[in-house]
Amino acid sequence: MLIRKYTILVYLLIVSFSPLFGQHQLTLTNEEEKEIKQGETVELFSNSVKAAEKKLAPYLEKGVDVPTPKDLAGGYTHSQHKKNYFLMQKAGVLFQITGNEAYAEFIKNTLEKYSAQYKNWDRHPSKKSYARGKIFWQCLNDANWLVYTSQAYGSIYSWLSPKERKKLNNELFRPMADFLSVETPRFFNRLHNHSTWANAGVGMIGLVMEDEDLVQKALYGLPITDEKVKDNDGGSITKEGQKEAGFLAQIDHSFSPDGYYTEGPYYQRYAMYPFLIFALALENQQPSLEIFKYREGVLLKAVDALLQQTNASGEFFPLNDAQKGMSYYSRELQLSLALGYYYGKQDKGLLGLIKEQQRVPLNYAGYIAARDINKGLAQPFKKHSIYFSDGPKGDKGGIGVLRSDEVELIMKFSQHGMGHGHFDRLSYSLNFGKEEVLQDYGAARYVNIHQKDGGGYLKENKTWAKQTIAHNTVVVGKRSQFKGNVKKADSISPEEYIFSTDKENVQVVSAKESNAYQEVDLHRTLVLIKDSSFENPLVLDLFNVQLDTAQLLQLPYHYHGQLMFSSVDLQRATTLKPLGEKDGYQHLWNVAEGEVKGAFNQINWFDKHRFYTLNMATTEGESITLAELGANDPHFNLRRDPSIILNKQGQKGDNWMVSILETHGSYSTVTEASKNTYSTIKDVFISFQNNEYITVNFTNKQNEEWTFILSTVDNSDVKEHQLSLKDRVIKWDGPFVLFKNEIDQ
Amino acid sequence: MLIRKYTILVYLLIVSFSPLFGQHQLTLTNEEEKEIKQGETVELFSNSVKAAEKKLAPYLEKGVDVPTPKDLAGGYTHSQHKKNYFLMQKAGVLFQITGNEAYAEFIKNTLEKYSAQYKNWDRHPSKKSYARGKIFWQCLNDANWLVYTSQAYGSIYSWLSPKERKKLNNELFRPMADFLSVETPRFFNRLHNHSTWANAGVGMIGLVMEDEDLVQKALYGLPITDEKVKDNDGGSITKEGQKEAGFLAQIDHSFSPDGYYTEGPYYQRYAMYPFLIFALALENQQPSLEIFKYREGVLLKAVDALLQQTNASGEFFPLNDAQKGMSYYSRELQLSLALGYYYGKQDKGLLGLIKEQQRVPLNYAGYIAARDINKGLAQPFKKHSIYFSDGPKGDKGGIGVLRSDEVELIMKFSQHGMGHGHFDRLSYSLNFGKEEVLQDYGAARYVNIHQKDGGGYLKENKTWAKQTIAHNTVVVGKRSQFKGNVKKADSISPEEYIFSTDKENVQVVSAKESNAYQEVDLHRTLVLIKDSSFENPLVLDLFNVQLDTAQLLQLPYHYHGQLMFSSVDLQRATTLKPLGEKDGYQHLWNVAEGEVKGAFNQINWFDKHRFYTLNMATTEGESITLAELGANDPHFNLRRDPSIILNKQGQKGDNWMVSILETHGSYSTVTEASKNTYSTIKDVFISFQNNEYITVNFTNKQNEEWTFILSTVDNSDVKEHQLSLKDRVIKWDGPFVLFKNEIDQ
Repeated sequence: MLIRKYTILVYLLIVSFSPLFGQHQLTLTNEEEKEIKQGETVELFSNSVKAAEKKLAPYLEKGVDVPTPKDLAGGYTHSQHKKNYFLMQKAGVLFQITGNEAYAEFIKNTLEKYSAQYKNWDRHPSKKSYARGKIFWQCLNDANWLVYTSQAYGSIYSWLSPKERKKLNNELFRPMADFLSVETPRFFNRLHNHSTWANAGVGMIGLVMEDEDLVQKALYGLPITDEKVKDNDGGSITKEGQKEAGFLAQIDHSFSPDGYYTEGPYYQRYAMYPFLIFALALENQQPSLEIFKYREGVLLKAVDALLQQTNASGEFFPLNDAQKGMSYYSRELQLSLALGYYYGKQDKGLLGLIKEQQRVPLNYAGYIAARDINKGLAQPFKKHSIYFSDGPKGDKGGIGVLRSDEVELIMKFSQHGMGHGHFDRLSYSLNFGKEEVLQDYGAARYVNIHQKDGGGYLKENKTWAKQTIAHNTVVVGKRSQFKGNVKKADSISPEEYIFSTDKENVQVVSAKESNAYQEVDLHRTLVLIKDSSFENPLVLDLFNVQLDTAQLLQLPYHYHGQLMFSSVDLQRATTLKPLGEKDGYQHLWNVAEGEVKGAFNQINWFDKHRFYTLNMATTEGESITLAELGANDPHFNLRRDPSIILNKQGQKGDNWMVSILETHGSYSTVTEASKNTYSTIKDVFISFQNNEYITVNFTNKQNEEWTFILSTVDNSDVKEHQLSLKDRVIKWDGPFVLFKNEIDQ
Repeated sequence: MLIRKYTILVYLLIVSFSPLFGQHQLTLTNEEEKEIKQGETVELFSNSVKAAEKKLAPYLEKGVDVPTPKDLAGGYTHSQHKKNYFLMQKAGVLFQITGNEAYAEFIKNTLEKYSAQYKNWDRHPSKKSYARGKIFWQCLNDANWLVYTSQAYGSIYSWLSPKERKKLNNELFRPMADFLSVETPRFFNRLHNHSTWANAGVGMIGLVMEDEDLVQKALYGLPITDEKVKDNDGGSITKEGQKEAGFLAQIDHSFSPDGYYTEGPYYQRYAMYPFLIFALALENQQPSLEIFKYREGVLLKAVDALLQQTNASGEFFPLNDAQKGMSYYSRELQLSLALGYYYGKQDKGLLGLIKEQQRVPLNYAGYIAARDINKGLAQPFKKHSIYFSDGPKGDKGGIGVLRSDEVELIMKFSQHGMGHGHFDRLSYSLNFGKEEVLQDYGAARYVNIHQKDGGGYLKENKTWAKQTIAHNTVVVGKRSQFKGNVKKADSISPEEYIFSTDKENVQVVSAKESNAYQEVDLHRTLVLIKDSSFENPLVLDLFNVQLDTAQLLQLPYHYHGQLMFSSVDLQRATTLKPLGEKDGYQHLWNVAEGEVKGAFNQINWFDKHRFYTLNMATTEGESITLAELGANDPHFNLRRDPSIILNKQGQKGDNWMVSILETHGSYSTVTEASKNTYSTIKDVFISFQNNEYITVNFTNKQNEEWTFILSTVDNSDVKEHQLSLKDRVIKWDGPFVLFKNEIDQ
């Protein structure tokens, strides 16, 4: 780390004498501006310019209101200040691109209104945040303001008179940069997406004002102190043993080497903007820093990671706290896509996404993307099976995404995800086409909907959405992982065991977790099997819970749709009671129960146009509970979603839960024709198991049989294995093998 | 009626000597066949020919299996015989259009297989139906077979040798026609959509074979007997006082003068085929009958009525027993659309729908439709506010559909709808764009899905879906209308009171019902109000229940989505119990309850991208119950749908329930921007009420006020009214008036 720092200091010495540093425009250099003005008209870009002009038009003459800060999010003063910075940023690029001074005047006038009042503003009256802003209730929003407004200021800096600049520098921007940094050090030095905005804002205004002190603070943070303070959303302010701060440290700590962002894609989408916009400013003003190559180009890898973490509708996987439905069509993605294309590998799939967005950011990368789309270079964006390691060094577990045909499986064994993390280790969710099959609940929140607690996180986010039972993973003893302790969960991560996607017919993701429960080892292996005997890829699930003492194990499946058939005789309750008292169980109604009979059981359901069957290898004493969400939810904050829970009285030693989820058949309400409404699977069973191996067999109605063997202790890809099964000797390399048995078996 | 019969007899005398009667082709005459062969190639038609050829190709050489009947619906023999008649019908028109004799051979060979076995087949072994078939478990399906196969037979009749014809006539078709008529008289003479197939089949084969006896039976039925028998789906076989039978009687009794079909659009879609295909055969073979002009062209009116009873996705309103999602994209609609266009008024909107279907039936109307689409004549199909009277004379209540912008309101006050009717008088359902806002549950059935009781009607169809509480209408004393007695409900209908759609800003539908409950008069008026002060049209609901004795009144609203805000303090139950023991209440969980406070209350919810608020004028003692479906549903046959129930302790005399449902605002999970999440309505109250009038006032947040006055006793359009309100004298004509009050009020 020291080497890196010195290298950059040397860069900075060179950079500060470079001619580029004399430019103040952050996102569009003089040269780029010139090229765009002189270049061909490109439809998508000129449409985006027109759209921005249209937004500005109503304000160019009359200006905007700059009210005394007072309201929370959703209130008038909050919305107005937010609107102001968006308008100024747009006006800045429009001034550069069109040369129309009305835009510059608009920015100048607005800034002067801020300048006249800023010194009189104390911290915001609301005390909700640990880091109260001046313009807004929290510093995060003040930092947003600065990130956008510094761009506007940079665009007109050379146009302003030295006197005007000096006044704004001294009365508005330097005080604001100081306020967000030295006067709010806990916020500025925190390794957190909110603070990245502060680092970026302070750095960007520093670049505009040629204030090297601010740029240094932005890049490296303030000296580290050792305070133990909690955020208003529950996370710790300072990381244990944190030694670095500032923008580069944010890059180091926020992304894994694969570009995975530990809070998950929903927050990454929001977090990417300050990373990329400051990076763009640095690239323009201090190109020798080569920020887009920093950590082997992790910022651009993060763009691709974000896009790969979307479903067939472009919606981000709702991992951790995430509102479902947020997608790569979000405004925040525009910059990511354009920079990802231009500074990355010119992936034509990104052009495909940009084309769908029908707009580009008003910078050079946006211009080039629009030009290349005009040339017809856009292609569909391709998604594939992919592994994302978590942690700065990539050694803190990760996310495994398996894709085959229309099936998309996401297994999560990453770090906890800090304040926005869920206790969901080894859970998985499943999509088929654009539909959720097994859902991750996402967050219990209605962002910006006032009725629901002002749009903030709801109490049920903590009591339900974060709990283990809310996820498709085993709950031991009816308690959430780490007993719901964020700090403990943050301190240690699960381990990747297998991620193998070389063979299209058998893709495997497997991980182990030994800390979530005391003296309990969890090991889950998910296998996506593609075989012409089945309509769609199958999901084989091998979940082992190693116990020191007997404990109840519960494996929920959060499905959608209508139950069609169950081989387990489910007795519906005549009165509904909650399933428990805490750890999320208090929110589940106990709808029906039934004990399994025999060694193979099926539960079959229907959703939209398809059928799904959970084919389970069962053992006596296991039972099924059907549950529905909604108990102890006084304000109707939870959705009325159903789940199937497999209950198993776990014994000392190994406790395997094995099943195959088959997606099959179809139904049309127009033709009223149904096809393959029952599963093709006839049996699933554990055919062998010892300390080193487990073998699972499954058969279909055509009496074809397959065997899957997993080495539970050796995940080497090259290790040679040998196992005798039914007088046959099976030999294979690597931690698993799938084969179809001979007909005579 | 006598006059009609004689007229037709005269026609038949003429007709039987007409040259056309020498043709045996039912759906495509020699002249039409020639014109198509010689005419230009029309893409949509030739594609439809190709699609049919493709379907036939695998069977031309090897033929089809004609197994001994044994299975129920879904089973092999059932499916095979069904497939056979579809294939033969297609082969017939293909033979006519292409001249390829392989198609004729295919039909001949298949028919000979049937002919060889038919005489040995007894009635089907299953005893589920009151009218067992020979080829299928019920005569309905045998009749289906005959309707399709007679077309195929007609296509090859002249091509066959006289000997071949004679054999098939004597050994297969005449015996089958006798079986479906004289040997199963209760089925053949019933006034019911199933029997229409028998009438059509017998008539069509009669036309092919020039068997006037069969044609007569088909048109006029067999002599009426007076048997009291019940159908397997609960309806009566013979109508009380039924004096007619046969195809023309079916037309008389099935459709109102507006073309409304009393069982509702879901069944009408299915029922239209035999009406139209036999009509087409009659039009071709006996044109002087002018069947498409019969009863002022009611068959073609029925096509338009069917299409107007669809939502923005083309799905039929799920009135009575109906599986949701069935739409005008259904195969059955192809014939309706083409005949509706050609024999009707050449509505270019129908071409628009045919174009969307991307296929046409292989007859002359289909050819002409395809040709006109090729000419670019297709236009979007237009829907509008429309009233459908019910009953053969149009005096048995009806359906009122109000449409304004994206709002679509369906009020039902028709006849009961026989065996498939629901106890839902004065209920309404509401759509916004493609979304249901207040739903009609439809049927409790998963058609053709084996898991759900073989795909037939589920027990819960009777215990829930048909009950009054399952609909958006008042339940008196927790009992369903007519105490659930179909016969009583069938015997008398509600009365239309107002249907007024001349003024776009205030459309009214109003009806009265005095028989559903003893000594209870129900009167509901729904007003669709469009005003620039509101984002979307409002639904003002004035529901009066006149009681002789105090009784509990409950008005449910079956909504979708998530509760957002309630001015009523709703206490959620900690244990869920059913709301009652019978009449559908046993299926509702009592989720929450709260007493209203004050004279105005709001319940606000969110679904997909919009907000909805029920703004209620309330009086002390009223309460709100929130319910969810699913209690006493051992096989998980019901959906988990929610409802809001307004409870009012009704007193002797008038009991008004008045509310305004506002659709407002928007939310996007991509921008996370919310707009107008609360209702604009500030107050709704009854400002005056006596024996003749009720006036309702409502105000919005901008303090604008409106008054709606309804005459509750005089529905004359020309009657002049005068009323003094707050020292103002209001004068108007007709049964209602809406006005905006002066600002000083």
